[in-house]
Amino acid sequence: MPEDLNSPYPPSLSKLIDAFAKLPGVGRRSAERQAYYFLKCNKEEAMDFAFAIRDLKKNLRSCQQCFNLAEAKLCAVCSNPARDNSILCVVEMPRDVIAIEKTGAYRGLYHVLLGRLAPTDGVEPEDLKIAELFKRVKQEEVKEVILATNPTAEGDITATYLASKLRLMGVRVTRLARGLSTGTEIEFAGQANLNNALDNRTEVEG
Amino acid sequence: MPEDLNSPYPPSLSKLIDAFAKLPGVGRRSAERQAYYFLKCNKEEAMDFAFAIRDLKKNLRSCQQCFNLAEAKLCAVCSNPARDNSILCVVEMPRDVIAIEKTGAYRGLYHVLLGRLAPTDGVEPEDLKIAELFKRVKQEEVKEVILATNPTAEGDITATYLASKLRLMGVRVTRLARGLSTGTEIEFAGQANLNNALDNRTEVEG
Repeated sequence: MPEDLNSPYPPSLSKLIDAFAKLPGVGRRSAERQAYYFLKCNKEEAMDFAFAIRDLKKNLRSCQQCFNLAEAKLCAVCSNPARDNSILCVVEMPRDVIAIEKTGAYRGLYHVLLGRLAPTDGVEPEDLKIAELFKRVKQEEVKEVILATNPTAEGDITATYLASKLRLMGVRVTRLARGLSTGTEIEFAGQANLNNALDNRTEVEG
Repeated sequence: MPEDLNSPYPPSLSKLIDAFAKLPGVGRRSAERQAYYFLKCNKEEAMDFAFAIRDLKKNLRSCQQCFNLAEAKLCAVCSNPARDNSILCVVEMPRDVIAIEKTGAYRGLYHVLLGRLAPTDGVEPEDLKIAELFKRVKQEEVKEVILATNPTAEGDITATYLASKLRLMGVRVTRLARGLSTGTEIEFAGQANLNNALDNRTEVEG
């Protein structure tokens, strides 16, 4: 190797390859190919890409009501007057909202916990948006809460905990049907499975 | 689907997913995963990524001497006094320079054509940096020109054309040994193959 070069790449290119290689599922080879793209594309397209990243961090926030991704005080679901505000679907993360919205099968509102209970990792109820959920159930005209945590050990612990508290508030508590195979994530379940899971949601017995 | 939403994503996220999906080898699913990464990472890291793209377009230019990628008037190879300026390695694209530099087996300079002859697509000698190559060979102390165009039909046409002209200038003309399997690209040949191809480069007979 030449003495004055640690890398055969010019510094700007090397830096962009490193940035791409940090992304999930991107190996070194893919990172190089993706960075090379910016050598060939025109300046406008490159800047559009850079601005898209900047704007994402600038514009995206949490919905004040349900903690879904939002670009205003309320997210697109909460601010839609056509949605049924008597049903709340409780999910772990905003990506779960997106997966359920893609089915087009749900017309109620959401509540995003921003995580799941994980006692062994020290994630307690007060670390999630659980107090906010209980407040909504008490103050709003909620008739049913659908627990749509992931069908994993921690998701189940979270759902069981929420169900025990919510039933005391006199609200109907349901869970997504276990058409989902245990261990998978809602985000990757696919539309048909999610449709079935919504249709077959079951009463949580005391 | 809700009436007021074409996509379940907030606009900023949707835009970034679209941007990633345009990159080579990135499908819709990967684009979503890569864009999600920017929801989780901190603002500083996201801006570093955006700046890396901006800086690439701002800082990178063509080396005035060899047309390799450069961040100054001359690229890192041309500006390195330890390189042997009596040998020129002629390649199609800057990525070929990077592949050969990675072997660490070559100590001469480069000349990047920025393409290859493709008569059927209308790419003629005047569309490439061929006049600039001949000028260097005439003006500088070049003793050998290694033709390292890709081992494809168009790469071969380009090498044959260059060899016929260069021999008239009294310079030694060689080609990379065909250890490379026909139809592959230098960029993906691998270090061992490129080392062999450099070691076994052969004289071009008249």
